[in-house]
Amino acid sequence: MKLVKKPVTGMKDILPEEMAIRNEVIGKVREVYGRFGFTEIETPIVEHIENLSSNQGGENEKLIFRILKRGEKLKLDNVKDSSDLTDSGLRYDLTLPLSRFFAANMNELPMPFKALQLGNVFRADRPQRGRFRQFMQCDIDILGDGSILAETELILATTALLNEVGFSGFTVRISDRRILHAMADYSGFRAETHDNLFIFLDKMDKIGIEGVKEELLKAGYAEEGVDKCLSLFSLCTEGSISNLELLSGKLGDSLDGAVLSSLKGIMENVDKVRGDGFELKFDPTLVRGMGYYTGTIFEIEAMEFGSSIAGGGRYDGMVGKFLGQEVPSCGLSIGFERIITILLEKGYDARTQEEKTAFLLEKRLSGERLSDIMKEAMDLRKGGKTVLVTYMAKNKKFQKEKLKQEGYSDIKEFFD
Amino acid sequence: MKLVKKPVTGMKDILPEEMAIRNEVIGKVREVYGRFGFTEIETPIVEHIENLSSNQGGENEKLIFRILKRGEKLKLDNVKDSSDLTDSGLRYDLTLPLSRFFAANMNELPMPFKALQLGNVFRADRPQRGRFRQFMQCDIDILGDGSILAETELILATTALLNEVGFSGFTVRISDRRILHAMADYSGFRAETHDNLFIFLDKMDKIGIEGVKEELLKAGYAEEGVDKCLSLFSLCTEGSISNLELLSGKLGDSLDGAVLSSLKGIMENVDKVRGDGFELKFDPTLVRGMGYYTGTIFEIEAMEFGSSIAGGGRYDGMVGKFLGQEVPSCGLSIGFERIITILLEKGYDARTQEEKTAFLLEKRLSGERLSDIMKEAMDLRKGGKTVLVTYMAKNKKFQKEKLKQEGYSDIKEFFD
Repeated sequence: MKLVKKPVTGMKDILPEEMAIRNEVIGKVREVYGRFGFTEIETPIVEHIENLSSNQGGENEKLIFRILKRGEKLKLDNVKDSSDLTDSGLRYDLTLPLSRFFAANMNELPMPFKALQLGNVFRADRPQRGRFRQFMQCDIDILGDGSILAETELILATTALLNEVGFSGFTVRISDRRILHAMADYSGFRAETHDNLFIFLDKMDKIGIEGVKEELLKAGYAEEGVDKCLSLFSLCTEGSISNLELLSGKLGDSLDGAVLSSLKGIMENVDKVRGDGFELKFDPTLVRGMGYYTGTIFEIEAMEFGSSIAGGGRYDGMVGKFLGQEVPSCGLSIGFERIITILLEKGYDARTQEEKTAFLLEKRLSGERLSDIMKEAMDLRKGGKTVLVTYMAKNKKFQKEKLKQEGYSDIKEFFD
Repeated sequence: MKLVKKPVTGMKDILPEEMAIRNEVIGKVREVYGRFGFTEIETPIVEHIENLSSNQGGENEKLIFRILKRGEKLKLDNVKDSSDLTDSGLRYDLTLPLSRFFAANMNELPMPFKALQLGNVFRADRPQRGRFRQFMQCDIDILGDGSILAETELILATTALLNEVGFSGFTVRISDRRILHAMADYSGFRAETHDNLFIFLDKMDKIGIEGVKEELLKAGYAEEGVDKCLSLFSLCTEGSISNLELLSGKLGDSLDGAVLSSLKGIMENVDKVRGDGFELKFDPTLVRGMGYYTGTIFEIEAMEFGSSIAGGGRYDGMVGKFLGQEVPSCGLSIGFERIITILLEKGYDARTQEEKTAFLLEKRLSGERLSDIMKEAMDLRKGGKTVLVTYMAKNKKFQKEKLKQEGYSDIKEFFD
């Protein structure tokens, strides 16, 4: 019986052309984030099932790849539920494992801890074009810093990285989860309805304010409250700090003054420090799906791409689930796979960025003559050059064309 | 309930100090192997269970982490065997997935294909000091080249890499699986007993020739055959090409002449081309555990480490299991985790190799003054410098000591 050639459903093999781009981007990630003092760490791909199923992962918890127990732990009699069969699974993000990592290792880590993570995560999503069940995430997080320095650094570092990777003209949208709650309170909506309300508000950029109103009414929200809530958004069309102040004034006691000063502080700070190349906007319609966010939230959009390529926020509660004691935490994740897709679609080829040499050897070549040629190749390699030594193919013209595609612009032929 | 802080059994968190070394070694792997024309690829961590259980993995097949089926495919009634519950698992090596990859993508790959892989593999081994259930493997393979160029390049590239990583004085031991078979034939042992015989021969360097003899007799091998077989080893004490020729002469018709000329060719070629820094020895006691090897086998030992840090060989049959058509294949795997362990034990710290700057800010600093300082940091970062901006801790002396350990030799303080 022949074995199965294709990768498992929803996962993909990465070929040399794409791999070269991935490695180039990963190199830039390490370089740029490194300059900002982020240090890389790694957690295992396998995580305790209790941690993965602790309501920190939202919808992703439905998409876990579970690992079968082994040996005596696996009991096949009387299996009632799949949870009897498994005690671990593949991580679906890097934030939960980072929180575990920090709780386990905090005494050996700098404080605050600026973490960089590059790693594969796994989600058993319905397979679809361009979305895979194994994909790379790239996160930076600052743990143990509750000040606006954290948000400022995350934004500055990530925009610097995106510039370095070749993107420009992006918009950083920023808000605070607590503003959303204040807006909901102000409109008379009870706390337990907020999360559901936010799901509707999140659609603002897709279906517009009228569309959102229609859906909210259909869902049973009181018209008076809905009007009151939606009217607040019209105060913030410019996304400026003065818009934010106007909104805050309107919200009055519903909003803690500290929220305004924190968000203002971040916006002013980023605005003064940053280089050029991006716009910074306050956007109260920003929701960010994950339930674990407790404060600032942000998203970065690239003009040429049309949708978000980075996002994150403050999640001060998660480390506490492991440690029993809260640790202020704030993170930003770039859409690594999207960035790779865009670069591939642009026709960028990382393999042709350096001049490389190929030695084409006549098939009969052997003995002393072969050794001499290989020695020549070795000497060039010692000098840092890339030299491929290979035999001539029957169709030499085709072989040379392919070699040029792979970046071997310098081809030397050797005969007996 | 608090969540679980420790990693899952047998797996480990990688902290900044070790991560920096890993990344430095990975950088050198990519650079050095890249110079030899190896191109990196990646396969999914999850693999079809049929492929993982196809007798290509030897003992590793007993150590597979299996993934639970999902949705309708998972039937919990009448489970007879754990194999009813799973259709995929985590890869235990990189060779099997590479063979699948090549079979699936060969039309888009250069021919011969020189692959580099760096990736995590998973084995549910009994947990023990220094051995983990998730670990990194680093393999180079040449597929589609049956000539001695393949072996030569694998050896030259890997010794060059090991030099670059800081190792020297190693011994490359080389043999051919077919010589072992010829020795066994010559001694009158039937083909079906060979694999078992090799397991005993493999112990030669641990228990000596007398120990091996004793164990073979105890296992029921005929004394005459055992003596005949073991006497052959005494012909090869120097490990030279002339030793190899002597052995081959003795084996006569039991050994195909092509085996001698191939192995001699590789040894002569490597010997002429290589730089300095290693010894090359023919070693007929070399076995290499995996059943899939069909020809040349080799192992690299570092003096200062005392045991093997790289090994591999020719496995011409594996791609054929996927493709239905044999493809000559040859690979070499370095002991990535061992190399990291040695570097850590040597006290090497990759974080202190570059001069880095830390800005220590008084806690009260904010507003315009904070922005100015951050702008100064940004300008240095744009010039390629690493600058950490952080607030002063209460115990500033301790904070500065820790920063120096992390490589921040240049520390500037800023007050309000």
